[in-house]
Amino acid sequence: MTELPLTYTTEPRPLSAALCDATGHLSMASLETRLIVAATRHADLLGVGYRELAAKGLAWVLSRMSIEMTAMPGILDVFSITTWVESFNRHLSYRNFAIHGADGTPIGFARSLWACIDINLRRTSELGSVPGCETALECPIAPIQRVAAPGPDAEVLPAGFTYSDLDFNRHVNSARYLERIADALGLDWHDSHRITRLDIAYLHETLPSTPAVLRIGRTDDAVTAEFADAESGTALCRARLAVERR
Amino acid sequence: MTELPLTYTTEPRPLSAALCDATGHLSMASLETRLIVAATRHADLLGVGYRELAAKGLAWVLSRMSIEMTAMPGILDVFSITTWVESFNRHLSYRNFAIHGADGTPIGFARSLWACIDINLRRTSELGSVPGCETALECPIAPIQRVAAPGPDAEVLPAGFTYSDLDFNRHVNSARYLERIADALGLDWHDSHRITRLDIAYLHETLPSTPAVLRIGRTDDAVTAEFADAESGTALCRARLAVERR
Repeated sequence: MTELPLTYTTEPRPLSAALCDATGHLSMASLETRLIVAATRHADLLGVGYRELAAKGLAWVLSRMSIEMTAMPGILDVFSITTWVESFNRHLSYRNFAIHGADGTPIGFARSLWACIDINLRRTSELGSVPGCETALECPIAPIQRVAAPGPDAEVLPAGFTYSDLDFNRHVNSARYLERIADALGLDWHDSHRITRLDIAYLHETLPSTPAVLRIGRTDDAVTAEFADAESGTALCRARLAVERR
Repeated sequence: MTELPLTYTTEPRPLSAALCDATGHLSMASLETRLIVAATRHADLLGVGYRELAAKGLAWVLSRMSIEMTAMPGILDVFSITTWVESFNRHLSYRNFAIHGADGTPIGFARSLWACIDINLRRTSELGSVPGCETALECPIAPIQRVAAPGPDAEVLPAGFTYSDLDFNRHVNSARYLERIADALGLDWHDSHRITRLDIAYLHETLPSTPAVLRIGRTDDAVTAEFADAESGTALCRARLAVERR
């Protein structure tokens, strides 16, 4: 019997200039996408990936993500992503990540929580039997945090979503929320601030028909954001960015 | 003396579900990004990449791209991209691409034209001496086409750009124009249409301060689009999509 690959590491590669943001670095949204792609690939290798779940009418959806970076890769910086499962049951998977620089030094870590949903019923479901794939590697960042809503003085922006914002589950792609928050902050903000920690909670799926608004609050050391259904007021996604001046 | 790598091929990999659009396929914008990343990596290997050009105050900018796909990769489909230089001088590079499926059969081809610009002067510049890196491989699609403006009955949409739309050159990322066009067409259009050929011309760079509009014209078998400066009327980018019903 073949042993399960308990960790999955991407090949260390230089960050293409073509994938950098205006500051010459990987954006937090692009990093989150890469973490999700690594997680998705590892799930494929563990036999609990897209193909196996789709055959049962199921899919993984990202519920929460926390990322801390001491440095964000810049143009042509070599880095790799290692991911592993901290715990796993029939409904949920806690999955962690380490991001390593060219010399093998960690430049960041991430934690994530995934839920198994029934694609047709659009609610949490059961995966059935699961392989024993938990592994204990160090992930020295604080656990996933509860994310509070922005205060009453938050800025309110319209936030409609369409084709490019959707993933294969036909709801808003996890990283697109981060892009919209980053866009609301604007280029000058990114030139003068660095995100040191992100906590993001995906509370309800956003469909392209959802009339969403984005509320943003800013202080010197943090940004809080909430996407909500403009009609019902239901919170769809909340994020908190801990930031420092560049 | 080490021989120059005259072609560059990405490792064949399954397309992550996490990178697919709502139809379960790679989007044309994501494909264009992958072609650009492969081109950028090949330029790095040829010694005319970001690092060498930046040291001279220069950068490559994509001027035109034409893509024809007989099939777009779907979830977990394995594919690779091969790129090579068709011709090359001190100002310009014609670069082609072949996209191969899992069994090595071509599923599409692309042609591109790149200009070397002076980053500070924001205009075409000279690269200086260039390596002999032209190679003649088959690229059996029609040459890059002139792209006409949409007719007077085109739909007109606002098209502001901000942080996530910019690349390291601090102008609008090539693929973002395609995303905006795709978004203007909407999800129902993508469910019922397939793009068989794209011709896109990047005519002037779009800065985040540019007050842009997008004009779109549609017929049964084509979409034409133009981004223009809303104040001066200058055309910034034009595209033509040849389409068929799914």
